[in-house]
Amino acid sequence: MKTAQLLNYERDRWIAGDNPAEIVSAIDGAPVATTGSGGIDFGAMLRHARDVGGPALRRLTFHERARMIKALGLAIMARKEELYELNYLTGATRKDGWIDIEGGAGTLFSFSSKGRRELPDAHVLLDGQLEGLSKQGTFVGQHIYTSLQGAAVHINAFNFPVWGMLEKLAPTILAGVPAIVKPASSTAYLCEAAFRVMIEAAVLPPGAIQLIVGGVGDLFDHLTGQDVVSFTGSAHTASKLKSHPTVMRESVKFIAEQDSLNASLLGPDAAPGTPEFDLFIREVATEMTVKAGQKCTAIRRAMAPAEHLDAVQQALSERLAKTKFGDPRAEGTRMGALVSLSQRDDVCARIAELEAAGARIVAGDPAADPPVAGGAFLPPILLRTDDPWAAQAVHDVEAFGPVSTIMPYRDLADAVALANRGKGSLALSLFTHSPDAAREFVQGAAAFHGRMLVLNRDNAAESTGHGSPLPVLVHGGPGRAGGSEEMGGIRGVKHYMQRTAVQSTPTMIAAISEQYIPGAPKDFRDGHPFRKRMSELHIGDTLRTESRTVSVADIEHFAEFTGDKFYAHMDEEAAKASPIFEGRVAHGYLILSFAAGLFVDPDPGPVLANTGLENLRFLTPLYPGDSLRVELTVRSKSLKSEDTGVVRWAVEIFNQKDDLVATYDLLTENVP
Amino acid sequence: MKTAQLLNYERDRWIAGDNPAEIVSAIDGAPVATTGSGGIDFGAMLRHARDVGGPALRRLTFHERARMIKALGLAIMARKEELYELNYLTGATRKDGWIDIEGGAGTLFSFSSKGRRELPDAHVLLDGQLEGLSKQGTFVGQHIYTSLQGAAVHINAFNFPVWGMLEKLAPTILAGVPAIVKPASSTAYLCEAAFRVMIEAAVLPPGAIQLIVGGVGDLFDHLTGQDVVSFTGSAHTASKLKSHPTVMRESVKFIAEQDSLNASLLGPDAAPGTPEFDLFIREVATEMTVKAGQKCTAIRRAMAPAEHLDAVQQALSERLAKTKFGDPRAEGTRMGALVSLSQRDDVCARIAELEAAGARIVAGDPAADPPVAGGAFLPPILLRTDDPWAAQAVHDVEAFGPVSTIMPYRDLADAVALANRGKGSLALSLFTHSPDAAREFVQGAAAFHGRMLVLNRDNAAESTGHGSPLPVLVHGGPGRAGGSEEMGGIRGVKHYMQRTAVQSTPTMIAAISEQYIPGAPKDFRDGHPFRKRMSELHIGDTLRTESRTVSVADIEHFAEFTGDKFYAHMDEEAAKASPIFEGRVAHGYLILSFAAGLFVDPDPGPVLANTGLENLRFLTPLYPGDSLRVELTVRSKSLKSEDTGVVRWAVEIFNQKDDLVATYDLLTENVP
Repeated sequence: MKTAQLLNYERDRWIAGDNPAEIVSAIDGAPVATTGSGGIDFGAMLRHARDVGGPALRRLTFHERARMIKALGLAIMARKEELYELNYLTGATRKDGWIDIEGGAGTLFSFSSKGRRELPDAHVLLDGQLEGLSKQGTFVGQHIYTSLQGAAVHINAFNFPVWGMLEKLAPTILAGVPAIVKPASSTAYLCEAAFRVMIEAAVLPPGAIQLIVGGVGDLFDHLTGQDVVSFTGSAHTASKLKSHPTVMRESVKFIAEQDSLNASLLGPDAAPGTPEFDLFIREVATEMTVKAGQKCTAIRRAMAPAEHLDAVQQALSERLAKTKFGDPRAEGTRMGALVSLSQRDDVCARIAELEAAGARIVAGDPAADPPVAGGAFLPPILLRTDDPWAAQAVHDVEAFGPVSTIMPYRDLADAVALANRGKGSLALSLFTHSPDAAREFVQGAAAFHGRMLVLNRDNAAESTGHGSPLPVLVHGGPGRAGGSEEMGGIRGVKHYMQRTAVQSTPTMIAAISEQYIPGAPKDFRDGHPFRKRMSELHIGDTLRTESRTVSVADIEHFAEFTGDKFYAHMDEEAAKASPIFEGRVAHGYLILSFAAGLFVDPDPGPVLANTGLENLRFLTPLYPGDSLRVELTVRSKSLKSEDTGVVRWAVEIFNQKDDLVATYDLLTENVP
Repeated sequence: MKTAQLLNYERDRWIAGDNPAEIVSAIDGAPVATTGSGGIDFGAMLRHARDVGGPALRRLTFHERARMIKALGLAIMARKEELYELNYLTGATRKDGWIDIEGGAGTLFSFSSKGRRELPDAHVLLDGQLEGLSKQGTFVGQHIYTSLQGAAVHINAFNFPVWGMLEKLAPTILAGVPAIVKPASSTAYLCEAAFRVMIEAAVLPPGAIQLIVGGVGDLFDHLTGQDVVSFTGSAHTASKLKSHPTVMRESVKFIAEQDSLNASLLGPDAAPGTPEFDLFIREVATEMTVKAGQKCTAIRRAMAPAEHLDAVQQALSERLAKTKFGDPRAEGTRMGALVSLSQRDDVCARIAELEAAGARIVAGDPAADPPVAGGAFLPPILLRTDDPWAAQAVHDVEAFGPVSTIMPYRDLADAVALANRGKGSLALSLFTHSPDAAREFVQGAAAFHGRMLVLNRDNAAESTGHGSPLPVLVHGGPGRAGGSEEMGGIRGVKHYMQRTAVQSTPTMIAAISEQYIPGAPKDFRDGHPFRKRMSELHIGDTLRTESRTVSVADIEHFAEFTGDKFYAHMDEEAAKASPIFEGRVAHGYLILSFAAGLFVDPDPGPVLANTGLENLRFLTPLYPGDSLRVELTVRSKSLKSEDTGVVRWAVEIFNQKDDLVATYDLLTENVP
């Protein structure tokens, strides 16, 4: 393989940077590529993102952006074999690469799907309910999210050059924000290749994404309060970047995912011989060896009841001894190389620190000969401490390789305290079959951990494992882990948006939010709305029905028919005696049913079915002799596919005095 | 009045600090109090909060904490006159004091109410829906919030010594986190008095709140990633504190509410003579003079269409000239003094900066004689610039007093750009009666502003005004304003909690979250659950009903009775032709009604009424001949008062094949 010169993607052009540095293969130290970004105008890149990419993305709706993200995922999948070839050079096995490459594409698919299901086909995202701020309802509040008008700067770690880029890009693009990607040097060739696939797919508008394959120069000097930095890497670098004077002065949003001494805990009930014991051993060994332990979520601290620690040591040592370790390209290899010799040296230095603090190596030899000459290989190294209260280093020192330390705990309270001694982690797992143990441990430790798994015989077969961040769950942790979150479905999108409290009349809130808001003007158009396709329906279109009187006979008939003879409907005296009713009242379900009878248009048409109902509240009882009528208003519309979509209707049921009897949102499946 | 020595409240004791400094009256410079915190062990205060206050608060449920917050508000209201007396000495009028004192108590009441209505009567808050992570449903995800296990450090500004303390304390205590309050020196006597009222009310557990009336010494050196700093004050101090090495190293959560060049905009439609023009003039004048303009939300930049700027200047000058300005204790005074002579000097220096940048004073004289000798008085000062693009200082320099600058804009796009030039603000108001103008402006500018008001003839009578942060809405802004949020109802509570993604079986998630989770074991107890008081109902208690077959006759009868003759129920061929159904199906409302008929227990009892229904989804069509049965499970319980509460039931409707036909949450009002 010849050495490639990696290019920067700057203002929609591929350009080489000055001062290139060489990157070598993790397997044998052979040159792979050169990379550099000298001479680039970083301020101009930021301005291009803000002036060209941002406006283009913001013109699109959430759904349009979601479809672009899916197309990017398909492009990655179509050319994944090119990426797998480069993946080996990072020291990773094909299975490791699957997490990075197909896991990255899967993250795009997940965000695309969430975006279409959970975000409106609009530019503004509402947050929470309308807040009444006044008696008459002319002054109300609504929180909205709008796209930040700056750029996202993504600074990625070396270990997942594809996934690490895509898990940040997916929420950013969905939010309507352009991004500048900066990969870690040692695996920049794989990131650049994946980035190139996306550019060649020609899905994104100009300025939406840019790439810096070398250093970021004076980029940070040009940041503003509309920009976001999302950083994955060491606490040391994070601290330097987030205290940058411009970041401080401009209150630049800074997302950090940094060091983490993740723990895994064998539950007090999980003695040797239980399924949970075996699952624990398997999980710790897997986390030590997948990606050669170079995962921010890998288990660094494995805790067990003191009486089971010897059994844990023995079972883990045996399992690790069987792990096939060597050239990642070879058939059957389970664990490949670290990313570089310098990374290997760093891990060995950390092991020495752990030993100096009183931990001892009980399996693996850091000085073992490498299976391929010149490669950055290190076998799995298991350490043990019997006094985790004295050996603080085991809670502080992260050896970013196939390294873990086993340690005892006395009881659950002791385990909580030990787990929390890591001062904040990304992921913690607990192996137990006891709900009480799970509650005590999770409630006691959750404040220190971003993600917690409780694994046992009932979910092991379907578990995605300790080390896998999932796009629908938050990834990040407090304290040492950086105090931030990424992903988590739509939660991650909001990091790239600004929440604003808007106060005004319902009319103005409706105009701003591109939705009907109760209290805003309704449009009583001709023609039944069930006879209109989605494209013919307008936000605010309202059907006003005839009214219908509800008699005692109706109530009694309904009670007989359905079997619902609740006292409030059947017994005048008992209903009067209740603190709520002044006499017998119509059934809530009778009111809903009569309402549907009033607003439904019977013939087949663009409304295919009623699929759901939300936020129903019964506000005023309906007494025999009262009448009811309905106003049915188009609140929002959202396409699900080319053939089908969802219309959300605001339903208001009034009595003859125009009091609100009930309100709810009705969901229908419609023809676009 | 004799000079008081202010005391610190440290580890549940009132103690004097060393090195006291003198505080003087804003009205005449007479000594009011001495304050100091020398010699205090700040690390011990933090440990006391974490080891004593935190555990005590965390043992309580959200509802128990909410009731304590209400009791604190009642204590403040009962002794408000003591506080009003001290309020005058800060230079504030009684009306200014109302915002501070009664507004502060109102914030406690609002959080107490939100806490009881929107939070569970439990220790864990669920965030979002259950996420399915596996095909069989044995591995699911749920985000939860748990209380941080550190302390909150509240650093407050001088301008609202009571409200400023309470708006931070309310969400903190509701979250279950202890607080250490540090007021600004110049008005510390008023904060100390309000704090003393709360301690003497004996509502909070030991260690829940502490007070530092002087400097914070080495407090910051002892912070950890479980602590939160919430700071209100200058950008300069904020920057110093948030870049503190311990804050950086430990990823301490830092909430900053700092400088803000808030803008108000006369809409393009709001010519002189319109109601919006008059409302704009009134609001700008009010914001300049309330609290002598010492409000972080006050209007500093008043923008108008260029052709109306002269009219704005004239109307504003006339209105300001009529403002009665002088001793705040005097009857009829509308504007009192600034907080101190040094504050007055600072404001005058900022005015000089604005003049140097090209703005000119068009109303008010900074050198006017004070109405009371020795007092920190400054009349309202109106400046004007005709070139707001050149005079960048008008968007940068915050004169924290009765000072505002009027400026022209050309069109809405120009107005958006000018408003956003403030680089992030807390509050912006727009006076317009045009929904299109509101949409264009708010969508264009929202990313730069934490709160936006659109005011006009329709909501003026009920508006709470440009300058009033409300407890149910977020208070904070991006960029220059600090990039943070406070309040916002439950949003503000979450700043003092940690979000954790929990992955496990439904059984384990139910145990951890203190709620029933679909898929978790149900408890089929004896006795109908409608016959049990809330205290006798357990989470997970389930009623399994008999089953009932639905016939074509039932469907036709229901259609006739209700009038709902939608094709899918009535026309076999048309239903078959739809992409959803295989033939005619039962009405959704028929299914709900029959379900109620199956699960309702008729006699009067602890279940008073069905008050609502949420998240209804129809999952499997029910065809004629199919049968249905219901499982009704207690999901959660929540007391509303001593006499009434809400039970949330998970309802699952199955067909004869045990397919889920529909699921929803049912809400009932119950007797505790």
